[in-house]
Amino acid sequence: VAELEQRLIERYFTGRGARRGDVALGIGDDAAVLDVRRGAQLIVTTDALIEGVHFIAGAPPRSLGHRALAVNLSDIAAMGAEPAWMLLALVLPRIDHGWLRDFSGALDRLARRERVALVGGNLSRGPLSITITLAGVVERGQALRRDGARAGDELYCSGTLGEAAAGLELLRTGRRHVTSAAARRLRRRFEYPEPRVALGRALRGIASACIDVSDGLYVDASRLLHASGVAAELELQALPLSQALRQQFGALAPRLALAGGEDYELCFTAPRRQRAALARLSRRLGVPITRLGTLYRGAGLRLHSADGKSVTQFSAALFDHFGHWPRASARGRQR
Amino acid sequence: VAELEQRLIERYFTGRGARRGDVALGIGDDAAVLDVRRGAQLIVTTDALIEGVHFIAGAPPRSLGHRALAVNLSDIAAMGAEPAWMLLALVLPRIDHGWLRDFSGALDRLARRERVALVGGNLSRGPLSITITLAGVVERGQALRRDGARAGDELYCSGTLGEAAAGLELLRTGRRHVTSAAARRLRRRFEYPEPRVALGRALRGIASACIDVSDGLYVDASRLLHASGVAAELELQALPLSQALRQQFGALAPRLALAGGEDYELCFTAPRRQRAALARLSRRLGVPITRLGTLYRGAGLRLHSADGKSVTQFSAALFDHFGHWPRASARGRQR
Repeated sequence: VAELEQRLIERYFTGRGARRGDVALGIGDDAAVLDVRRGAQLIVTTDALIEGVHFIAGAPPRSLGHRALAVNLSDIAAMGAEPAWMLLALVLPRIDHGWLRDFSGALDRLARRERVALVGGNLSRGPLSITITLAGVVERGQALRRDGARAGDELYCSGTLGEAAAGLELLRTGRRHVTSAAARRLRRRFEYPEPRVALGRALRGIASACIDVSDGLYVDASRLLHASGVAAELELQALPLSQALRQQFGALAPRLALAGGEDYELCFTAPRRQRAALARLSRRLGVPITRLGTLYRGAGLRLHSADGKSVTQFSAALFDHFGHWPRASARGRQR
Repeated sequence: VAELEQRLIERYFTGRGARRGDVALGIGDDAAVLDVRRGAQLIVTTDALIEGVHFIAGAPPRSLGHRALAVNLSDIAAMGAEPAWMLLALVLPRIDHGWLRDFSGALDRLARRERVALVGGNLSRGPLSITITLAGVVERGQALRRDGARAGDELYCSGTLGEAAAGLELLRTGRRHVTSAAARRLRRRFEYPEPRVALGRALRGIASACIDVSDGLYVDASRLLHASGVAAELELQALPLSQALRQQFGALAPRLALAGGEDYELCFTAPRRQRAALARLSRRLGVPITRLGTLYRGAGLRLHSADGKSVTQFSAALFDHFGHWPRASARGRQR
């Protein structure tokens, strides 16, 4: 009953995450009471993980606890904001204490590391899903938006691309137990994504626009360009592909990098004069930053292959990861 | 694919709800950017409606759009806060434009009336569920909490109790088409609850503690008492029972009022000296306010029947509404 829900919340979720002085009232009342510091704007986002859509049935609860927060942290990172407070709406088919312990433990670890307090939520019975709403703050007027890119700016991404989609592919096709270091790395990229919170914060004042790469570079860069009303050319040979990805997926690596999704890297634009600042930032944070191309007047994202040919027929839809909603045909799932 | 999700969001959800000057950036970026006014604290809550748990399969989308927001508004009301912004995480088994139109229309209407802007969210494919996170603001230090009640204070509730549970019972037992005015009223109380936002605001400075009645008066009043570390005696004959409830459920009416849930009235406490202020408030807002009993030192909620006997064996669990998680036995569902 409601009492059981309350006991489970007390056992697994009360006091989880960071302790923050700006939480005036946390879990245990009708709503949380929070202090937003002066001069800051509030940033809010929500993202859900649904079984069979965003993860495979039987996915490890540690991975789910980590990912549910990580995908939201990535949105906050893309705004250049500082994460602060989360609410969790958890739907479980049954009470499994081992599952709850692992899930809440992983959520707690990532939340502490990123200084996020768990300030509310609810627990229901039903098909497994995890919805987190994450709030943060950013100095007034300094949020990174999608619509600030200008012709002449350059297009960048952080880290490496395509690995999470490759890891998901390994998990889906039963290659879960391939134990090469490369396969482990790819699976880890999917199961334990590392949102670029520090990078997002550091890009304030440098980047002209920013978006996180959740649906694949092609789709997400296109969104940024559309919002800003500009076009871009992207050099396929510039795509940052890891050794592990090339080793496991060979010639498919660039397509996974473009269309794979779940990378949770940042895609951003900056004026040419920021090249040196970005290089310093990359060194300081230990995060690779790759220049992918240049923006110009117009609309759309044009791909350039290594031999200088323009690739025009790229269809992101073919590479949408499983279950994203809805697919045109089952064939789109196969490679 | 992601593009379809975006088109559906643009068609049914972008620009819905109230327009507010404090929304610096709404739907369409990685996160929303909001201005919290100076001197205010942020209030946040999240509540989910899951098919088969919080509503019956085939429930009218207008009711779901209304209820999903109403249950969250009720939490904000119980804090004495002013609702402002919401995020919607919607999971749908299929795209049904008629459903989406009715759902988003009802959500929009209630949001406009209560001055709530829809500033973000996401759409996924899966078993039907609706999760709304609602944020609001309250003057610093003025939030109504559960833990402020003191011995000697008096216990109150707003409106009438038990009607929503009665309405749900009519819907569940196939009496959906009973067309008496009483039955219509009861069903309406379940399908279109009216959260007490104006009353919650007005109770700042008058009430010593407040909670909304979502799980039934017995459970929710007990939570308030527990949080405040006090006990109360509640006069069963004082329970505000509507004509409609008595007419349709006779002798069961008091039990539905105590244990029914889904009323979304406010249960609160106030010092005796506030009696006149509460009477004025009740008249001004046109909301019945009923004194239910008195608080004293100790723990627990004791019920007093009309003949002066103390009712000690009341089991709220027997009356938990369907599907709340989990039930001890199926017999608990029957009356």
